[in-house]
Amino acid sequence: MAKVNLAFLNDLVQAITRTERRGRGKDQLTAQTLLMRPPAERLAAACDVLMGRIGEAARVAVAEQALAAYAELDAEKQHDFFALLRDRFGADPEPIRKAYAAYDADPSAANLASLFEAVEPRRQTLLRRLNMAPGATLKLVAMRADLLKAIAANPSLAPIDSDFAHLLGSWFNRGFLYLERIDWSTPAAILEKIIAYESVHQIADWDDLRRRLDQADRRCYAFFHPATGNEPLIFVEVALTRAIPDAIAPILTAPRVDAPDEADTAVFYSINNSLPGLKGVSFGNLLIKQVVAVLQAELPQIKTFVTLSPAPGFAAWLSGETDSRAVALRTELEKGGWQNDPAEVERLRPEVEAAAARYFTEARSRKGAPYDPVARFHLGNGAAAWRVNWPADLAPGAVKRGHGLMINYLYDPVAIETQHEAFMRDGTIATGAPLASVLAR
Amino acid sequence: MAKVNLAFLNDLVQAITRTERRGRGKDQLTAQTLLMRPPAERLAAACDVLMGRIGEAARVAVAEQALAAYAELDAEKQHDFFALLRDRFGADPEPIRKAYAAYDADPSAANLASLFEAVEPRRQTLLRRLNMAPGATLKLVAMRADLLKAIAANPSLAPIDSDFAHLLGSWFNRGFLYLERIDWSTPAAILEKIIAYESVHQIADWDDLRRRLDQADRRCYAFFHPATGNEPLIFVEVALTRAIPDAIAPILTAPRVDAPDEADTAVFYSINNSLPGLKGVSFGNLLIKQVVAVLQAELPQIKTFVTLSPAPGFAAWLSGETDSRAVALRTELEKGGWQNDPAEVERLRPEVEAAAARYFTEARSRKGAPYDPVARFHLGNGAAAWRVNWPADLAPGAVKRGHGLMINYLYDPVAIETQHEAFMRDGTIATGAPLASVLAR
Amino acid sequence: MAKVNLAFLNDLVQAITRTERRGRGKDQLTAQTLLMRPPAERLAAACDVLMGRIGEAARVAVAEQALAAYAELDAEKQHDFFALLRDRFGADPEPIRKAYAAYDADPSAANLASLFEAVEPRRQTLLRRLNMAPGATLKLVAMRADLLKAIAANPSLAPIDSDFAHLLGSWFNRGFLYLERIDWSTPAAILEKIIAYESVHQIADWDDLRRRLDQADRRCYAFFHPATGNEPLIFVEVALTRAIPDAIAPILTAPRVDAPDEADTAVFYSINNSLPGLKGVSFGNLLIKQVVAVLQAELPQIKTFVTLSPAPGFAAWLSGETDSRAVALRTELEKGGWQNDPAEVERLRPEVEAAAARYFTEARSRKGAPYDPVARFHLGNGAAAWRVNWPADLAPGAVKRGHGLMINYLYDPVAIETQHEAFMRDGTIATGAPLASVLAR
Amino acid sequence: MAKVNLAFLNDLVQAITRTERRGRGKDQLTAQTLLMRPPAERLAAACDVLMGRIGEAARVAVAEQALAAYAELDAEKQHDFFALLRDRFGADPEPIRKAYAAYDADPSAANLASLFEAVEPRRQTLLRRLNMAPGATLKLVAMRADLLKAIAANPSLAPIDSDFAHLLGSWFNRGFLYLERIDWSTPAAILEKIIAYESVHQIADWDDLRRRLDQADRRCYAFFHPATGNEPLIFVEVALTRAIPDAIAPILTAPRVDAPDEADTAVFYSINNSLPGLKGVSFGNLLIKQVVAVLQAELPQIKTFVTLSPAPGFAAWLSGETDSRAVALRTELEKGGWQNDPAEVERLRPEVEAAAARYFTEARSRKGAPYDPVARFHLGNGAAAWRVNWPADLAPGAVKRGHGLMINYLYDPVAIETQHEAFMRDGTIATGAPLASVLAR
Repeated sequence: MAKVNLAFLNDLVQAITRTERRGRGKDQLTAQTLLMRPPAERLAAACDVLMGRIGEAARVAVAEQALAAYAELDAEKQHDFFALLRDRFGADPEPIRKAYAAYDADPSAANLASLFEAVEPRRQTLLRRLNMAPGATLKLVAMRADLLKAIAANPSLAPIDSDFAHLLGSWFNRGFLYLERIDWSTPAAILEKIIAYESVHQIADWDDLRRRLDQADRRCYAFFHPATGNEPLIFVEVALTRAIPDAIAPILTAPRVDAPDEADTAVFYSINNSLPGLKGVSFGNLLIKQVVAVLQAELPQIKTFVTLSPAPGFAAWLSGETDSRAVALRTELEKGGWQNDPAEVERLRPEVEAAAARYFTEARSRKGAPYDPVARFHLGNGAAAWRVNWPADLAPGAVKRGHGLMINYLYDPVAIETQHEAFMRDGTIATGAPLASVLAR
Repeated sequence: MAKVNLAFLNDLVQAITRTERRGRGKDQLTAQTLLMRPPAERLAAACDVLMGRIGEAARVAVAEQALAAYAELDAEKQHDFFALLRDRFGADPEPIRKAYAAYDADPSAANLASLFEAVEPRRQTLLRRLNMAPGATLKLVAMRADLLKAIAANPSLAPIDSDFAHLLGSWFNRGFLYLERIDWSTPAAILEKIIAYESVHQIADWDDLRRRLDQADRRCYAFFHPATGNEPLIFVEVALTRAIPDAIAPILTAPRVDAPDEADTAVFYSINNSLPGLKGVSFGNLLIKQVVAVLQAELPQIKTFVTLSPAPGFAAWLSGETDSRAVALRTELEKGGWQNDPAEVERLRPEVEAAAARYFTEARSRKGAPYDPVARFHLGNGAAAWRVNWPADLAPGAVKRGHGLMINYLYDPVAIETQHEAFMRDGTIATGAPLASVLAR
Repeated sequence: MAKVNLAFLNDLVQAITRTERRGRGKDQLTAQTLLMRPPAERLAAACDVLMGRIGEAARVAVAEQALAAYAELDAEKQHDFFALLRDRFGADPEPIRKAYAAYDADPSAANLASLFEAVEPRRQTLLRRLNMAPGATLKLVAMRADLLKAIAANPSLAPIDSDFAHLLGSWFNRGFLYLERIDWSTPAAILEKIIAYESVHQIADWDDLRRRLDQADRRCYAFFHPATGNEPLIFVEVALTRAIPDAIAPILTAPRVDAPDEADTAVFYSINNSLPGLKGVSFGNLLIKQVVAVLQAELPQIKTFVTLSPAPGFAAWLSGETDSRAVALRTELEKGGWQNDPAEVERLRPEVEAAAARYFTEARSRKGAPYDPVARFHLGNGAAAWRVNWPADLAPGAVKRGHGLMINYLYDPVAIETQHEAFMRDGTIATGAPLASVLAR
Repeated sequence: MAKVNLAFLNDLVQAITRTERRGRGKDQLTAQTLLMRPPAERLAAACDVLMGRIGEAARVAVAEQALAAYAELDAEKQHDFFALLRDRFGADPEPIRKAYAAYDADPSAANLASLFEAVEPRRQTLLRRLNMAPGATLKLVAMRADLLKAIAANPSLAPIDSDFAHLLGSWFNRGFLYLERIDWSTPAAILEKIIAYESVHQIADWDDLRRRLDQADRRCYAFFHPATGNEPLIFVEVALTRAIPDAIAPILTAPRVDAPDEADTAVFYSINNSLPGLKGVSFGNLLIKQVVAVLQAELPQIKTFVTLSPAPGFAAWLSGETDSRAVALRTELEKGGWQNDPAEVERLRPEVEAAAARYFTEARSRKGAPYDPVARFHLGNGAAAWRVNWPADLAPGAVKRGHGLMINYLYDPVAIETQHEAFMRDGTIATGAPLASVLAR
């Protein structure tokens, strides 16, 4: 506990004492003794106080203590705390029963409202009160990231994620987000997060970052939320190019055009969600569309909006295919060597393209969605699968997961909404002319 | 409809058509024909679309259209819309029954989560989606103000206010608010709202405003929310003085000290909530305590934090008292003339002070809370009833509602929390020495 | 002397003592005794210290004391101070003689540089050092305004204005100015200056100001300088209209178009220099051209940039004309009554227009420049005299000075530079078609 | 010429044509032909135009072209341009003679003003007009840096540096500078300049930078000027420590205290002037004193303000000393090996300290100032030579130039001004107790 505000601790102790309403004999609680208690105990005490009858300003202080105590917990103690949230901050069955009986007898709006109130888990109130502390929102997002890990180990904690998801979904409503351009005049404290959070095409160092931000052919945009300040929630890196690119290396290493007005195409070549604690609170769709609008206004000569995206499920999918052609192709690709052999690449390309085309249009997950997770995102947004590119990314990870394959998804502003709906309705995948011609071969 | 974006309207039409999934024969809907429909119809259509399967970006556009259509409704049509929210955007009984049956059989956290989901009225989702439009939050706050008026006329609409209150309470969480000082370097667009929203001691014009902001002995602070931008949600006007003031006119007309460091007292002489649509989402408590902290840091020589508050229920309460002393006093006060007669004031003062002391310490509402609404607020915050002052405000409204009586509530930082709790627990009212001595007479 | 920093005063005293290097016997100077001396004496002492061998940081403090002492002077003492600047802060003749002799013998660049250094009046150094105090620049501008008044009474002070003009011209170099839009989100502290400085068409109050700033058809721009902060040095008020207006009242009272995109014309209807101390350091030319550029970029449909300007010298000029037609016209106009008599206006208009056309194209000052001061400014900028409008302004001052006459000057971006040069070269006045047709009658 | 604005070039051509006032026959100048001319010719033409009778707005454009053309010049052509400034933009002898004759006859203020005007080299006007272009100030500072290099090769250019120095001194008046803290929330575009300009203790990379900025015991402050925006003109790096440090490595590698309130000393361990073109326009003095004031206000427990400074002239001075003790010490030091031999260090220390004490208090340049350039700066500011530290910096450059010696200069706020004056008056060097005790040995 880096820095302790004793006055607040005294308040907390008094509040605990008052809340507990019982003598403690020789074990009288004081600020000093509280300090010596383990953080899990301090946290539990603070949560009890928060749900009690204390003033708003005191709540802010107690919430601060609670979050500080939480920060000291290790994974095991975190798990205990989540179990506490599950078991002690649910809802009382009796009021629910009564409210349901009334609703069952007369399903009026008033009775529904009462039932809703009775059913809301008390931990939602607790989380809202924790959120009163300065900087709390980001800490609650991190807490949820811890929770998601804990759930992976112990699924019985899953129900309390509903409450986190519910509240975060409400707080991170798109109406509260703002789009900011990230460039070389952005504070270093934000830029270092861009370096840290970029996981699609990693940023080696500040020089590499500068190459992606401080050139006439580059743009980067992020969504921010007022309560999480400097934290870029999601960001997209854009290269302005002539024509649709078919490989990532040229984009990562050098400018594609000297001036924005020489470009006709905007390439979204990296999209990153920053905070695992915001899983399921998706902004990517909106980010891309808002950036398209910004670029259309600023650079009217840009007509094509497209991604250059990895195919992270391609190798896994191919290895699961059992027809002889797939098996043969996989064997060749895994053998390696083609990376540095142009003739070999030319020989293999038709086969790879055909497999890739099948992968993007036919391969499905068990739930019936596209097998490729990146495809699910872009097709779900209403983009079209435009063209497969091979070999397009020879970074080790990209070769391992996708045999070096990449794909362009096209965001055509006039077609997006219709394609989105068709995809949502029955899984229809929009395909571009280049991909279609591969399919037609 | 000031300005119409035809492209968006076309989207909306297409979305409606797709949502409705039916041919419309000759009555084919187009952007033009939609435009000619009444706003209530456009609004209802947009709400249906919003709840349907459209993309996020389209939702933003449709939400914008919906709010624009709402803005055209008169009170009657607003009422119809609220009834629609009540009747068509509730929750489906069947899933609730099933979820409840499961919960009833096993009241586990998972079953509680499912029940909570089933029970949440669909209008909460609708409101969250409406909130995606630019500037929507303030419009939804205004919509709730309309709703509160509509409920006054038609109590059957009350249940949907729970949903507004629930969402606004979550969005306007104290963790999202920020405190700003208001002074003469504040944009005029904010200052004019201060003029408009000041209802305790009205601001006559810009010169009057300047007198309250741009002098060394004045401070003004407001809470803002990122989503409502320039809107001061609540603000407090402060005068720095020597000693605790006993009348409002000197404060409103001239500086009390020449420089802040000559003052030992900060007087909160006017606190205003700006937006009726945020009723019940209270910030006042926190605002005062935060301003106390700001002033303590900036002006350490200020030791006393106190209000100079009206007594808006005093006249009504006195007129309901039936003992002869009260009746006699009321008769004298209502007769008037004392306002300009110092001797008369001296004669009446002991009687008024005695009645006032009784009023602030004994008078209760039917619910058992202090009768005076301002007292409820400050005592509930943990302040002490310090001193009654008469005559302290001779403005017509103040004379009519409070016979010119004012009171100081004392915010003693070290006592606030204890007094708050005592008040919350059993209604204990903390009294200051001056008031206590009146009571002891 | 509102607030005295005794520590600084002690420094000042010590510095004075050290500078003077002489015992003072019983009359030993102390901070307290210095304080009791009259401000003129304090100022003179501070100036001596500033020119002496003190550190930079001490200079800042002494400069502050000097400017504070200056602020206490009345007009007579200001005059004495300016005389002091003239007589004691000139240049030493001996070094000048030597430097000139060297230059005369060899007019090399090096000898010129030495001569320049010898010739520079010491008050320029003094003013540069005074400028080191916080907020000094604006105070020096005000000091020059005082000086200009003093010169009017005592021309022998004129030479020191060269030094002020020289330094202010250098400090207020256009490269240091920045253009800002003034609107309703501008801080009140700036807006109140707009009200105070508007002298062409006075602003009655804040409501009137709002009418000129906060409507879709209005723009206002000002130049600011970093060292004078909130001070709008010069500002122009713009109305967006359809067609070129011929009268001021409609512009001052109501919006001309509902939305900027309905306008085809931008009317500069009021241009104000704020600080008399910046006389001769002109920004107006550049302001108009920069605003034209801003509006062209933002509102491409606006094709016409024009003023609606007063004719403040018309009445004086007409009263000096001796031909019978002019005398007859003047008599009619001065008789009055035409203001409210449309028939009379129609009768007089051809005569007024003819005289006005002559006035703007032929009337000259003794120096050969256009007689009308506003015409000198706009024609000097390269604008064309477009159309005379009568009656166009019935405000008492406008009737008195200009018989209600106004004129549009046209700023045609492609013609400005050529017209400017022609005007500078030989006084050629560009005229618009409407004015030309009056001249041709 | 990266990007050419043809419209402006046409203006320029027209202006040149008009200025030259002569037909050009077949060699008619056009924008295209001008473009093909070498930059030196374009620059000379633009300068002529700038001095001619063109409008203010045209001046801005022409100044921009001139500076763009200058940017294309190599060192030789720069030299030619400076010679042009010297030879063609001086002052006319005839008016000077007349003005001097008048002044000689009557050395009145008015005649002095006329003489001053006649004597001012025309290049000052030219530079002021060049400064009207956007971003010009920084370019003129860079031009002066080029000039200083050119003067080193050709002293006959020296006189025109007077004009640059005169103007830059006026524009960079301390009243126009503002102090900003540099930390991790500063834009990267500024931070990279800190990396580039730090020459005392070089910054290896961004991680190194972060170590110096983003820790609780570090501060960094810079002066900026409104006209040069993001350019830190001078900056100082500060470490908060307990006690006065005697070696640089610990400061460069790790935090000295965990929290500012644990420190009692502020160490200015690196001060850098950024722009060689501002040579002689010194800000360092004021920067240090202003930072002292900022730190005193923010961290009142800090009582000692001190530098840890290199001794860049020590080795050169020692090698010039001829007494046997100095020769012996130099031989030992140059032999090396002591760096890694604690016993050797202990043996040599008394000798080094004695020599160092003599160096800082007695060694003089030919002009009589302290021999050490860093000493000249700090002693000139009024600091005291506090303590010599050896070995304190083992970086190769520090060993080469100063045998690893460093010194603390003490900035005692109450003594600075007196010490400054004593130093300025007769070269008195204030010494601290530790240094005095070495001298007394």
